[in-house]
Amino acid sequence: MTLSPTPRSTIRRGSKRAATDRADLHAVLDAALVCHLAVVVDDAPLVLPTGYGRDGDTLYLHGSTGARSLREAARGVPVCVAVTLLDGVVYARSVFDHSMNYRAAVVHGTAVPVTDPDAKAHALRVLTEHIAPGSWDYARQPTPKELAATSVLALDLAEASVKIRSGPPGDEEDDVAANARWAGVLPLRTSWGAAESDPALVGDWDVPPHVVNRT
Amino acid sequence: MTLSPTPRSTIRRGSKRAATDRADLHAVLDAALVCHLAVVVDDAPLVLPTGYGRDGDTLYLHGSTGARSLREAARGVPVCVAVTLLDGVVYARSVFDHSMNYRAAVVHGTAVPVTDPDAKAHALRVLTEHIAPGSWDYARQPTPKELAATSVLALDLAEASVKIRSGPPGDEEDDVAANARWAGVLPLRTSWGAAESDPALVGDWDVPPHVVNRT
Repeated sequence: MTLSPTPRSTIRRGSKRAATDRADLHAVLDAALVCHLAVVVDDAPLVLPTGYGRDGDTLYLHGSTGARSLREAARGVPVCVAVTLLDGVVYARSVFDHSMNYRAAVVHGTAVPVTDPDAKAHALRVLTEHIAPGSWDYARQPTPKELAATSVLALDLAEASVKIRSGPPGDEEDDVAANARWAGVLPLRTSWGAAESDPALVGDWDVPPHVVNRT
Repeated sequence: MTLSPTPRSTIRRGSKRAATDRADLHAVLDAALVCHLAVVVDDAPLVLPTGYGRDGDTLYLHGSTGARSLREAARGVPVCVAVTLLDGVVYARSVFDHSMNYRAAVVHGTAVPVTDPDAKAHALRVLTEHIAPGSWDYARQPTPKELAATSVLALDLAEASVKIRSGPPGDEEDDVAANARWAGVLPLRTSWGAAESDPALVGDWDVPPHVVNRT
């Protein structure tokens, strides 16, 4: 299934950077940790960072960090979700052609609250395993009270677009021919540091494998 | 000047994580590279990643990546801008108390196109120096044609909020007392890789200091 089935999810500007494969969308969503969730509140936009997880073509979002409109819209509310990974800064020969290397997904749709207890537990497992793989089985699972206190939204990934920029600068021919300035890419890397054990732990603890071996 | 002067920029959920100092806002904005800019288009939210730069209490945004509504609204358009830095994943003893360490700024306001040529050149310098410090003086500066082809928006930082979470998990007392599971934080680090020179460069080039020494 290809992406961009509607006008608003069809990339016009920089269309050479548009990815059209659903696998590209999944790869971007699986590689990032946080999304930016936008809603309309009192005719104005509101955007907030929140955790998410993907199961097939459904995105699960932590709803409780969103606006009141999100929590109250039982039948769903129009949302837009962006997930962005920055891969580097592109130093061009000209200021104008400076850019960034990135992978960016944007999803449009209607977010629907997940209320059925079994469906909610499933969504929370997907969310938890995205943010902290291995934690669902290792940590204490939610009590019914905790489950009730957690708000989860589901968003279909049908209407989405992906833009990817990679590689060297795209300077003007004259600037390249002049060969008067350095140009290139400074890559941006993300990595895990050493795990910091909670000072409230009593006794000696090894950091468990699902944390220490996280890639 | 403190933050949160309006109801919509006053943090209610998790208010213990709200920072109230304008310096915190500036620090978050200065530490990140990309923001997420949300607007309302045809009654639906749209959020896109874009570059920005800060000068005092003005945020300059690359407008051309935004929606048509942004480019056409000469008198300004309501926007919401989020800037998020992820600092780590918080592994709690319970699934429910899993969290992330982060610094997040949200700005509400009206984005106004910068059209005066001198003001636009200043805004572009601020944007360029945020994304690629040193590039404004090193790279070829914009021609009048390039300047005209670039769209820049200005957003006042008056109405903004900052949330910061740091430190160990906030588990329930019973879970801590049980001491039955490891808990802690896995920090997330961002760093620059080795600069990759453009293959189109002719001859031997040293990577210039403003790139190789970027912190």
